[in-house]
Amino acid sequence: MTLWWQQPVKPLDESARAVARLRQDNLTKPPGSLGRLEQLAVELAAMQYRVKPRIDHPWITIFAGDHGVVAEGVSAFPQAVTQQMLANFVNGGAAISVLARAAGARLEVVDAGTLAPAQMPGVLWAKAGDGSANFTLGPAMSEAQLVHCLNLGRATVKRSITFGSDLFIGGEMGIGNTTSAAALACALLGLPGIELAGPGTGLDAGGVSHKAAVIDRGLELHGFAPPFAKGGPGGIYSGSTEATLEIPPSPPLAKGGTVDLAHAALRCLGGFEIAALAGAYIACAQQGLPVLVDGFITTAAALAACRMNAGVRDWLLFAHASAEPGHARLLAALDAHPLLRLEMRLGEGSGAATALPLLRLACELHGGMATFAEAGVSAGTRHG
Amino acid sequence: MTLWWQQPVKPLDESARAVARLRQDNLTKPPGSLGRLEQLAVELAAMQYRVKPRIDHPWITIFAGDHGVVAEGVSAFPQAVTQQMLANFVNGGAAISVLARAAGARLEVVDAGTLAPAQMPGVLWAKAGDGSANFTLGPAMSEAQLVHCLNLGRATVKRSITFGSDLFIGGEMGIGNTTSAAALACALLGLPGIELAGPGTGLDAGGVSHKAAVIDRGLELHGFAPPFAKGGPGGIYSGSTEATLEIPPSPPLAKGGTVDLAHAALRCLGGFEIAALAGAYIACAQQGLPVLVDGFITTAAALAACRMNAGVRDWLLFAHASAEPGHARLLAALDAHPLLRLEMRLGEGSGAATALPLLRLACELHGGMATFAEAGVSAGTRHG
Repeated sequence: MTLWWQQPVKPLDESARAVARLRQDNLTKPPGSLGRLEQLAVELAAMQYRVKPRIDHPWITIFAGDHGVVAEGVSAFPQAVTQQMLANFVNGGAAISVLARAAGARLEVVDAGTLAPAQMPGVLWAKAGDGSANFTLGPAMSEAQLVHCLNLGRATVKRSITFGSDLFIGGEMGIGNTTSAAALACALLGLPGIELAGPGTGLDAGGVSHKAAVIDRGLELHGFAPPFAKGGPGGIYSGSTEATLEIPPSPPLAKGGTVDLAHAALRCLGGFEIAALAGAYIACAQQGLPVLVDGFITTAAALAACRMNAGVRDWLLFAHASAEPGHARLLAALDAHPLLRLEMRLGEGSGAATALPLLRLACELHGGMATFAEAGVSAGTRHG
Repeated sequence: MTLWWQQPVKPLDESARAVARLRQDNLTKPPGSLGRLEQLAVELAAMQYRVKPRIDHPWITIFAGDHGVVAEGVSAFPQAVTQQMLANFVNGGAAISVLARAAGARLEVVDAGTLAPAQMPGVLWAKAGDGSANFTLGPAMSEAQLVHCLNLGRATVKRSITFGSDLFIGGEMGIGNTTSAAALACALLGLPGIELAGPGTGLDAGGVSHKAAVIDRGLELHGFAPPFAKGGPGGIYSGSTEATLEIPPSPPLAKGGTVDLAHAALRCLGGFEIAALAGAYIACAQQGLPVLVDGFITTAAALAACRMNAGVRDWLLFAHASAEPGHARLLAALDAHPLLRLEMRLGEGSGAATALPLLRLACELHGGMATFAEAGVSAGTRHG
């Protein structure tokens, strides 16, 4: 029996793509002069199965979880902030609350496993547990908890489709989750902690080194440590810089292939909100709902989703390049070229909600501009 | 008597800037995590003299002009397209029409000097002449025409302020105007044509070389040719690449200082719409209306404006990096770091109108988010 997350994704509509491309070339502008906005509209046409795509009902779900690895001292903020921020999301004071209002987007907050002892007002209660376990001491979650989170992601997507959503944005909240996301991505990409550990909410250089060491202990414990990193200062990982974006092959230790490795990495190193995001992305691709991926943590979840089901990649658009240093590497691994580069690093889905107007304008231009024939404008010599 | 465009600009409100900066650091997010959106809000606070800036009434004026230099074969589109596109702007089918609708912005189209024989419906008639003259044969315009255009820009800004606008976007339309803009900027920066000539609406490599040669003839005729470019293949301009963004000093031939040089370059090489844009930018800075600069041609106009009155720079925000290759050099000369990089190269104000939602979201976040104290959220260790 195939597990649901391994089932095929919906194919893109290549016919709508071709007609949309043709339309773009006949709009009253030099061909190509709207740059990436043209590509975006054409891509969305293929995803939405219509020549003139629209984003009328964007949907944002924030999944929240707490992280046992916080006990290792990897965050600049106390763990209580996870719950405080959930209240802030619901009360309208957080960045994503403001952005969702501005976008007219539905904003939903789901507790996938924080330390909150009871349901918080306005927050959907779907806890896999009271925070994930400390991954330096054992797996972050059980298999049952992982499946709970993947199913939670799928259920969320189905609910959003019932409400008529035409674009899915996943956000996350969880003190410590850049550590989990970095550890997960290190396992998937065969990298040591130092390559993807970053300041997160505000660590200094010493804090980042400590965070990398914590990640390495987790990688080692669960069998994901890149074996060739142990060569000492001559190893390929020593002294690597931001410019080095080559992704080495998955670690030879991995058994059972890419799909199983991703599943195991998500269970051993991920967080409840990260697993829910991965489940949501896979479900979006299966149900045919375009995804706008946010920043570092959501991209790590997207990477896991794509390793668990390669077809998912076709359904992902990438909003922004985060200031979190490891994000560039995750984007490169997904061959993703995000729309914005504004040095944002907040999470919550805020980068995606900020990029949303660009997708809408791409659709408006594509659907609303006149063609050369309609406007009686002479085409350029490349047309003539 | 000081000419109006040499009179001082309005100072920025440093007090509003400081209070806005303090507010940003107390909003419920890790400090700095909204990246450039934070800086934007703070900058707009200083420009709008209020701690919580807003963009409720953006204003877009497209200035149009025809260019005598088109006779030299520098455009991929026929000259008739200038007038055809004005009709398209007014009828709502052009990119900027769609973007203005989406933004709820007022869109105004001003004929600063096209070849249109009579007023076109919906277009403001303010012609300085029937197109500028071919700058390879003589000055593009007379002193009286230049002053007409600068005054036209100022009158436009005053009208927009009367209507309550809180942000000014200038757009342009004019077949051939990348050639005029490049020639103007070459004169201001002491560069030969090849450094700033680009494909514009769609020239091939041969077309770009020809365009560069046409620009060089204009620079030579009017005394703006960079003298040190004549050293042959060993000269500093030979083989320069995109990576070379150093701006050499203004050509030693220039007499009367920067201000006079800019004035002369605008008259000899500019276009009517480019001069009107320069006048508008100067007037915005004097009247205290923030400007969002669009792409290659408007940035050349902004460069001229800043050379004519250095204080103008404080009032300019830059929307996007155009795909037109010379734009990077103009931006560097203005120390400008645009918000978007979407490979757009359409003009009309389209890049600025596309970036407008980012300015608005920056204001919304700044004004609408809760502070740590308001939300009862614990601040990070950097605060504690």
